[in-house]
Amino acid sequence: MSAEIIAVGTEILLGDIVNTNAQYISQELAKLGIDVYFQSVVGDNPKRLEDTIYKAFERADIVITSGGLGPTRDDITKEICAKYFERDFVRDEKAYEMLEAFFTKIGKEMTENNIKQIMVPEGSIVMYNHNGTAPGVIMEGKGKILIMLPGPPRELIPMFQEYAVPFLKSKSEYTFVSRVLRVAKLGESKTEYMLRDLIDSQTNPTIATYVKNVEAVVRITAKAKSEDEAKALIEPVAQEIYRRFGKNVYAEGDKNIRMAVCEELLEKNITVACAESCTGGMVAAAFTDYPGISQVFIEGAVTYCNDAKMRRLGVKAETLEKYDAVSAETAMEMAEGIAKTSGAEIGVSTTGVAGPGGGTPERPVGLVYVGFYRNGKAKAVKLNYPGLRETVRTRAVDAVFNIIRNELEGLEYGGE
Amino acid sequence: MSAEIIAVGTEILLGDIVNTNAQYISQELAKLGIDVYFQSVVGDNPKRLEDTIYKAFERADIVITSGGLGPTRDDITKEICAKYFERDFVRDEKAYEMLEAFFTKIGKEMTENNIKQIMVPEGSIVMYNHNGTAPGVIMEGKGKILIMLPGPPRELIPMFQEYAVPFLKSKSEYTFVSRVLRVAKLGESKTEYMLRDLIDSQTNPTIATYVKNVEAVVRITAKAKSEDEAKALIEPVAQEIYRRFGKNVYAEGDKNIRMAVCEELLEKNITVACAESCTGGMVAAAFTDYPGISQVFIEGAVTYCNDAKMRRLGVKAETLEKYDAVSAETAMEMAEGIAKTSGAEIGVSTTGVAGPGGGTPERPVGLVYVGFYRNGKAKAVKLNYPGLRETVRTRAVDAVFNIIRNELEGLEYGGE
Repeated sequence: MSAEIIAVGTEILLGDIVNTNAQYISQELAKLGIDVYFQSVVGDNPKRLEDTIYKAFERADIVITSGGLGPTRDDITKEICAKYFERDFVRDEKAYEMLEAFFTKIGKEMTENNIKQIMVPEGSIVMYNHNGTAPGVIMEGKGKILIMLPGPPRELIPMFQEYAVPFLKSKSEYTFVSRVLRVAKLGESKTEYMLRDLIDSQTNPTIATYVKNVEAVVRITAKAKSEDEAKALIEPVAQEIYRRFGKNVYAEGDKNIRMAVCEELLEKNITVACAESCTGGMVAAAFTDYPGISQVFIEGAVTYCNDAKMRRLGVKAETLEKYDAVSAETAMEMAEGIAKTSGAEIGVSTTGVAGPGGGTPERPVGLVYVGFYRNGKAKAVKLNYPGLRETVRTRAVDAVFNIIRNELEGLEYGGE
Repeated sequence: MSAEIIAVGTEILLGDIVNTNAQYISQELAKLGIDVYFQSVVGDNPKRLEDTIYKAFERADIVITSGGLGPTRDDITKEICAKYFERDFVRDEKAYEMLEAFFTKIGKEMTENNIKQIMVPEGSIVMYNHNGTAPGVIMEGKGKILIMLPGPPRELIPMFQEYAVPFLKSKSEYTFVSRVLRVAKLGESKTEYMLRDLIDSQTNPTIATYVKNVEAVVRITAKAKSEDEAKALIEPVAQEIYRRFGKNVYAEGDKNIRMAVCEELLEKNITVACAESCTGGMVAAAFTDYPGISQVFIEGAVTYCNDAKMRRLGVKAETLEKYDAVSAETAMEMAEGIAKTSGAEIGVSTTGVAGPGGGTPERPVGLVYVGFYRNGKAKAVKLNYPGLRETVRTRAVDAVFNIIRNELEGLEYGGE
């Protein structure tokens, strides 16, 4: 089965927001083994919207729309789709009750406009919205499937999970099962190189890789009559990948390196604290992005200036003077300082030149030292990330988590 | 003039990456007064790619592609576009020299594949790539304009600025000038309400608003024969908006509230430090996102647990016990503590329940206190952000900056 994703929204065409819904839906469809050949974004112009939807039905079995279900006159997605399927509108009582309850709760009056939202094409499956006012709709006919979702991600995502995923699963005679292995990066394109023969020789399951900053994501997807059969097809391929990459396979599923490290620290009850210069709070923010991390994340210190590095962390003035604030020595003293002053078992640190200014030939923009301290021993890794400030900082954060993981597993960090 | 944006990339269709290029290009085109009616994403299938590009030329004056310029066989965007314009390929010597220099620099050998990248359709304007290997191309013919850009944003953005912006400006008989006013949020939909009559009555300039977390962005766009004339059309409208919103207009242009506050602190040389609980480093990361902030940003402390709040910031055990860690009292002591221990003039703090767990009826998920300390006085603002952990944290960060600005300007912070 193939699907096409259409976002309806002038604010996306104006560049006011980025179309994250398309990414989310694409990821979910990939898991279900449904191919996506097109994503498009169109405004609320009736003619263009109709053309786009009709064209999509020519090309794809399934059309999924996001947005355009609001109460205003401009929100016409439902009308156009009902026309395609030649259906009249009926009022959905459950949707009406939910809408009424919603307005009671927020203490506002429901307007005539809002009533439009609870009118649905007859014979459609209504997807009730627990996080907003516009219900979604699933329609079938003419050998096609249409799934209409509201625009805000906080409404779209739970609705997609509750209704669209089970519906789409029920439509396929085959089951698609994906298993995602995440491999810590071994060096430029090495992961793909080490998998090339497997990728080329496999048809079911298929293997797809995607390389990010400090990791490669390997997705193995099998097609079979049952979930068990699909899993059995995947197993030997996954085993082979584990055999080739060993402990560098750091997780399966949606878990990225940051989450994997947080999970491992929590599991092993190893406490951690961080001292940051160039990443300026991003390492702490990454830790605290993980719910429940307070059990092991003791403290973060953002010591942007030398004074704070000395005062909070006990970095020595001589070190800063002799080796510079951006140096392996400073990184190590920072890591040691935060571990000792906070009482955490592991201390990590960053110091570097994030740019755009402040670079010199000896200390170029993108130079970052990551420090690590545990059991009385400190070490530092030198990294070099040419690029924009944002890139340098983000990659430095990933490097911190990669280094922690390597230390926990006894692996050598190869840099990048 | 109208434009259509096509991203070529299987990794977007698989949901591995989000299409930020479309957002960037849309924003830039909006500034130039060029309408975007479609964005689409297509893979590297030759037939589908050709259909998409040809269809785009039917609908739009300008087609802008991103991606598909790489060295592999699958990268066929250039071939399809050359076919549309009926052009042969010629070798571009300057691009060749740059490519050769690039490979020398990274110490690798250039392959035959790479040579493909420096072949360009004859008669095209070559956009040299200072941040990667694939040059971009501008082509004109059949009354249409084509702009082909590489996929990685760090290559696409500088290339678009250097070549595409001046080229597109030269093509229009009219000049479009946009001026963006940023208004700190006054409460749900109030900004839009206060502008409704202006929006409805204007045709040139036009006024568009977009409301974000703690601010409304108001874009005034005028069309005229010259830049000066366009600016003159905008001026009285801008003045009227200033008259209505007063100091709540906190900046013009791309500057968001975070940047505006950083700029003001730097200008006035007012030092600041932050102590974070629920935002866990995100406030510090937002400050340090601003290049040069080290002049005034003294320090950040991420005190996630009570122990760290007491040890680093001097929050009293009685306060934590009597009022709870999530309370106005704790927020104020945190703000005071970080200001006093760091020596910064202003101290700010956050403490709250980011979720998803940890909520109680008295202390629900989304409850956040922001503390502010200056000149011996502390205050706290209570906020409530129902939503996901990510949303709660992001909005709390914006609230911190909004509160600092209000304090600097002597405005009352109205919450949201």
